[in-house]
Amino acid sequence: MPDILHKIGIQSSVDEAYKALTTREGLAAWWTRDTLDESEAGGTVRFRFWGNQGFDMKVLELDPGKRVLWQVVDGPEDWLGTKVSFDLAQEEDYAVVRFKHAGWKAPVDFMHHCSTKWGMFLMSLKSVLEGGTGTPWPNDIKLDKWEVEAG
Amino acid sequence: MPDILHKIGIQSSVDEAYKALTTREGLAAWWTRDTLDESEAGGTVRFRFWGNQGFDMKVLELDPGKRVLWQVVDGPEDWLGTKVSFDLAQEEDYAVVRFKHAGWKAPVDFMHHCSTKWGMFLMSLKSVLEGGTGTPWPNDIKLDKWEVEAG
Repeated sequence: MPDILHKIGIQSSVDEAYKALTTREGLAAWWTRDTLDESEAGGTVRFRFWGNQGFDMKVLELDPGKRVLWQVVDGPEDWLGTKVSFDLAQEEDYAVVRFKHAGWKAPVDFMHHCSTKWGMFLMSLKSVLEGGTGTPWPNDIKLDKWEVEAG
Repeated sequence: MPDILHKIGIQSSVDEAYKALTTREGLAAWWTRDTLDESEAGGTVRFRFWGNQGFDMKVLELDPGKRVLWQVVDGPEDWLGTKVSFDLAQEEDYAVVRFKHAGWKAPVDFMHHCSTKWGMFLMSLKSVLEGGTGTPWPNDIKLDKWEVEAG
């Protein structure tokens, strides 16, 4: 099964990176402003875009400073059951984030889009943690016409 | 075998996008300033970064307004033999680019990096074609410490 893979080094500590991946405020600063819940192991975090659309993620693993693993329990059909992980490692003064969105059934068109979009959001995460401005939805860089029109 | 996939919509014509993928000047504006050759089917284009490092791409297919296919014939071992394709489609006033970097033997760490980096460069392509500024190497967004240090 094809996976979306990314890696980004952030001039930050893994503890700061972990916070940005596991608190409502942290997630809202780089992925979507409409992050509706705090993360708790076994709980569900709802991420919304364009009103009521989005993804519900069950939090499968929370390993402070090391790893976050979610599974999609509600959202677009292509995403259902897929798993999203963030593995963190401190490499000198950089927090290195290795990202995987695994379990896609096929390399569908939406997977191509999501790959580019995850890359953009990870750059948003990097920017926030390095003292710049994040570009969480709805301030994200729109990659396609339908995104521009959806707002 | 794992592939890097991306998709990006550009407010442009496929003809303009094709030019940006098949001329030395076009490629130098979004990928690397040190694009050393013009593209010709059957020929080789040398892309350089940090002096003499980079990739030599054999141009396997050039289908105007539709498709560009390269194969890596020299460069880092992980890249050797891999294929890079750009499929273009005009969707209303957008040129949609579907990108694939196929043939990686394994999902190595460098593949994660290259996935994020290709996404960044495709956003650079979009920016150039929409009248903004490209971020080709050496003006690219550095994603890792080693990139910052390499310059």
